[in-house]
Amino acid sequence: MQNVYLSNYELNEAIEIYLKKLGNFSLNKEKISTWDANGRITCNPMFSIISSPHYNSSAMDGIATKSEKTFSASDRNHVILEEFEDYIVVDTGDPIPREYDCVIMVEDLIKVDEKKIEIYQSATPWQNIRPLGEDIVENQLIIPSNHKIRPVDIGALIAGGINSLEVYKKPVIGIIPTGTELVEPGTSLKIGDIIDFNSRVFSAQVSDWGGIAKRYNIVKDNYQEIKNTVIKASSECDMVLINAGSSAGREDFTSEVISEVGELMIHGVAIKPGKPVMMGKVNNKPIIGIPGFPVSAYFVMEKIAKQIVEGLQGIESKVDKVIDATLTKRAMSSLKYLEFVRVKLGYIDNKFIATPLARGAGATMSLVKADGVLEIDQNVEGIEAGTIVKIKMLNSEENIKNTLVCIGSHDPIIDIASDIMHQRNKMYFLSSANVGSMGGIMSLNKGEAHMAPIHLLNMETGEYNKSYVEKYIPNKKICLVKCVKRIQGFMVKKGNPLNVKDFKDLSRDGLKFVNRQRGSGTRLLLDYNLKKLNISPEKISGYFREEYTHLAVAAAVSAGDADVGLGVYSAATMMNLDFIPVCNEEYDIAIPEEYIEMNIVKEFIKTIKSKTFKEELEKLGGYDYTETGDIIYQ
Amino acid sequence: MQNVYLSNYELNEAIEIYLKKLGNFSLNKEKISTWDANGRITCNPMFSIISSPHYNSSAMDGIATKSEKTFSASDRNHVILEEFEDYIVVDTGDPIPREYDCVIMVEDLIKVDEKKIEIYQSATPWQNIRPLGEDIVENQLIIPSNHKIRPVDIGALIAGGINSLEVYKKPVIGIIPTGTELVEPGTSLKIGDIIDFNSRVFSAQVSDWGGIAKRYNIVKDNYQEIKNTVIKASSECDMVLINAGSSAGREDFTSEVISEVGELMIHGVAIKPGKPVMMGKVNNKPIIGIPGFPVSAYFVMEKIAKQIVEGLQGIESKVDKVIDATLTKRAMSSLKYLEFVRVKLGYIDNKFIATPLARGAGATMSLVKADGVLEIDQNVEGIEAGTIVKIKMLNSEENIKNTLVCIGSHDPIIDIASDIMHQRNKMYFLSSANVGSMGGIMSLNKGEAHMAPIHLLNMETGEYNKSYVEKYIPNKKICLVKCVKRIQGFMVKKGNPLNVKDFKDLSRDGLKFVNRQRGSGTRLLLDYNLKKLNISPEKISGYFREEYTHLAVAAAVSAGDADVGLGVYSAATMMNLDFIPVCNEEYDIAIPEEYIEMNIVKEFIKTIKSKTFKEELEKLGGYDYTETGDIIYQ
Repeated sequence: MQNVYLSNYELNEAIEIYLKKLGNFSLNKEKISTWDANGRITCNPMFSIISSPHYNSSAMDGIATKSEKTFSASDRNHVILEEFEDYIVVDTGDPIPREYDCVIMVEDLIKVDEKKIEIYQSATPWQNIRPLGEDIVENQLIIPSNHKIRPVDIGALIAGGINSLEVYKKPVIGIIPTGTELVEPGTSLKIGDIIDFNSRVFSAQVSDWGGIAKRYNIVKDNYQEIKNTVIKASSECDMVLINAGSSAGREDFTSEVISEVGELMIHGVAIKPGKPVMMGKVNNKPIIGIPGFPVSAYFVMEKIAKQIVEGLQGIESKVDKVIDATLTKRAMSSLKYLEFVRVKLGYIDNKFIATPLARGAGATMSLVKADGVLEIDQNVEGIEAGTIVKIKMLNSEENIKNTLVCIGSHDPIIDIASDIMHQRNKMYFLSSANVGSMGGIMSLNKGEAHMAPIHLLNMETGEYNKSYVEKYIPNKKICLVKCVKRIQGFMVKKGNPLNVKDFKDLSRDGLKFVNRQRGSGTRLLLDYNLKKLNISPEKISGYFREEYTHLAVAAAVSAGDADVGLGVYSAATMMNLDFIPVCNEEYDIAIPEEYIEMNIVKEFIKTIKSKTFKEELEKLGGYDYTETGDIIYQ
Repeated sequence: MQNVYLSNYELNEAIEIYLKKLGNFSLNKEKISTWDANGRITCNPMFSIISSPHYNSSAMDGIATKSEKTFSASDRNHVILEEFEDYIVVDTGDPIPREYDCVIMVEDLIKVDEKKIEIYQSATPWQNIRPLGEDIVENQLIIPSNHKIRPVDIGALIAGGINSLEVYKKPVIGIIPTGTELVEPGTSLKIGDIIDFNSRVFSAQVSDWGGIAKRYNIVKDNYQEIKNTVIKASSECDMVLINAGSSAGREDFTSEVISEVGELMIHGVAIKPGKPVMMGKVNNKPIIGIPGFPVSAYFVMEKIAKQIVEGLQGIESKVDKVIDATLTKRAMSSLKYLEFVRVKLGYIDNKFIATPLARGAGATMSLVKADGVLEIDQNVEGIEAGTIVKIKMLNSEENIKNTLVCIGSHDPIIDIASDIMHQRNKMYFLSSANVGSMGGIMSLNKGEAHMAPIHLLNMETGEYNKSYVEKYIPNKKICLVKCVKRIQGFMVKKGNPLNVKDFKDLSRDGLKFVNRQRGSGTRLLLDYNLKKLNISPEKISGYFREEYTHLAVAAAVSAGDADVGLGVYSAATMMNLDFIPVCNEEYDIAIPEEYIEMNIVKEFIKTIKSKTFKEELEKLGGYDYTETGDIIYQ
């Protein structure tokens, strides 16, 4: 059954219509102790019940006296005061009896005898007295209604005599995962199974927004079961989120269920990802049908569900923090939708740069890696590279300014170096993108990276890397920092069942190869050897299947959907494959000279020179680190 | 016993020394389910255990086939494919058998018969296939160590087969309130009692920082008791915060206790407020002695305790968000200390302005009202008005840009209007400062406020407000919006025991008056009447005691430490006092014409015209709102 979109509302329009149809939320209140109210939302303005301080007190150690008795005092005309007659002794915090109106501090007193003191300057009324209510006056407004209570508010409330107050109850949000293909985490996976993690992500989001998540068990694609669960949830919760499965090619009963037991107000909004969202009302509670693809689900949660969950607590959603950044690649988009593009941010040469991440609605890692979101309006057909765009932040500006941007060839050891560097100095982060050696060189050219790991073989000289940086980065002075020498070779199933020995074997019939993307050093290494042997790519089954990392190639072999791939030793061992060495290569890091003195770059070099890093290389095997961290070319 | 400061270290120096002496924290770890890990901190980098998707699947509804069979297909040369021989039918998400390498979508197929289809364009290898590991490859890094887990991370971790992981335990922070003067909230207060609220504020701060607060009962100023509690807490907790009572004029055993049972490393830091802070170690746990004054305590918590609590979870404290703002008043400071000045921020004429708030270490309301903090470096002697300063934000830029700045004469109804406006539109806030009518006019002059409530009587004409705005704001076109007519009068104890009838009575012997500050309309009203009656201020006992609000005056009378004050009817009734009317006056709001069209100003005017607001005025009594919200002068 194909799902037909009922509508294609513009996002804000859809929310407006939905909120109007929902009407005012009936917000539940509860009375709690002030000291348990941190982070909760006030129902009413809170006025103090008592004054603080609740009496006039001395702000000094000294005497409380009557100012008019001191007016004539001066250096030439000392005035004598008698205890109990004219003054009493007070300490800081002591109450001031009504008959006195000022305090003279002990430093300004000359003792005559036990009962007499002399003063040599006049006192002004109310000097050195902390009057009743100086901090808080009875009936004074302390915090307004719909205010999120902070620690300092708790202090002022208690000081003002308010020991309990009414706050909005945390709304209970029901979360229903549906789909016959869904299995619980930990189930041993069969082909076609999909682990349900969306419902766990929703639960965490809901609690971040101040709600209480109530997750229901997975419901198979069965109309009656879905209907029963929706009815149950709508009676037990203040709001229901139903994870409605993908929009196409599957059973999708959600919209029918909502229409039958309640009212489906909107189905389909002009956003991408997220268009198949449903908004409705069941049992007078809001219900939202969230698409199944993780990224679609994420944006529907953030852009639509969030403000309902917050609205149920009487709070207004905050607008996201926005920065300006330069777009590094063209961002395509459709005229039909408002598009949310996840971007990786970098801070290079004192400006932010934004690189779009994988677009797929299933790319959960793009959400993990994203530093921000670029929203491309409906009726805009993509944005050109180099444009300055507004980015809604998911990460802090500070973190991004402390992030080393590393773009180029992939090796698992870059992730390891990144982690060790962060351990050594928690202020610093490293972000890496795997676009191959040539891609890395181009990023340096365009000023989009601080460094680029490369392993590029000069086919004439047989030498690595130097000639490429000279040729392809003419306008920048580049240093090469030695990372490692590493072994490239064939990754094959344990025991090498097809007996792969060298490049000739790749063209063998029935043997399936898995390749790396164009521009990667490993791909160049392959092509160089095929050329030497006059083997044409078409001869190699699987030559056109491109993967972006050594691990992805190894995974394909280990899953048995390819027989052989070319890659590094460590990837093979991680995936428990056999490895047939082909050659050693120089895996170096190209860094523009202008960056080499940056603290974060220095920290990175210290990191790869560290004992910890070399121990990790030992564990992985296949790496030679004799020169690691040395500048081998400048 | 006077407390002598042992040291006067510069803040960062003190923290550095302290952290070095503490050595590495022994961080406790625990293994928890991935779906319970939101907000927790990873101990290790997390690598995926499985790939996602875990098989090659179709990204479309259509057929899976072999690309080489399609290469010759074109519009002029259709190619026929046979089911099972050349292709199989697949739905989105279906697995792709090893013998096929691409998917052609249903829209591009021409059906010949049940078992045959025709295609008119070639397919490229791996088109429309979602390959194994497209999202996550086995052994891929998902999140690094020391990473605060977010909802999206939970999704990726579960997708990567990680169902549990090691995180740092939440540190337990012991909180010990000490002081013989301290009483629990709710105790009926005797003179000299102080309600303990600091420990409740600390608890809330600690949980905001990811710790678990363990509050101990109040400990009297008794060496042995304090010692026993410190020993107990240091054995039960990962860190101890002891609220050490004020620094002077009191018993202070804390430093001695820390020195005896552990090590006191630092006592006294060059910050203000907060200088008497103590940093030490007991039973190998960090212990911090926090000063008793609430504001001192706040800054010691934020500037020192916070990074220890976060360090115990393996996280680095984030740097605060900073903005530039223009200082409206001179901010004094001492050369001896780094000073923390709480400021109220406003956004006027497209720039931020910062107004220092009350400085007293006891002023808890200054923390509630503060939008940010101005740090004045040691060796800097104050900062001049008009200087552009860096403000560390406590509130969001967005909120401040949506805040109406109202500076001038005080009336309780301004707080009420503020609350109703926020109810009507949760985006908007109103911040008010009570500096009297003349102060409000000066703020408008200097562009530091959007509006100023005033009630200024022209002593010649007997007319209100107009002549003042004309005379004192010559360079701005000002509108007067009618707020209310209100009754001013004498506030006296119930039954008017001293039988106060008019201004003559104020000079009576034995009668104690409480006054309003210079520049307030109420003060001018008093002086005007005294002048008419030729009564000299010196004749009036209490004339020189100045309070800033009607409520503060009423509080003084109700507490019996004055017999009479001049103020509005509503303040008298709130404090349950008798009220002897003196005159009606015009309480209007002066707004520069350039602001009158701002949405937030319009919203304010709508608010005071609203039924809700007028109902509140009815409840308070003493207000005439016939013209409320009308522009009465332009």
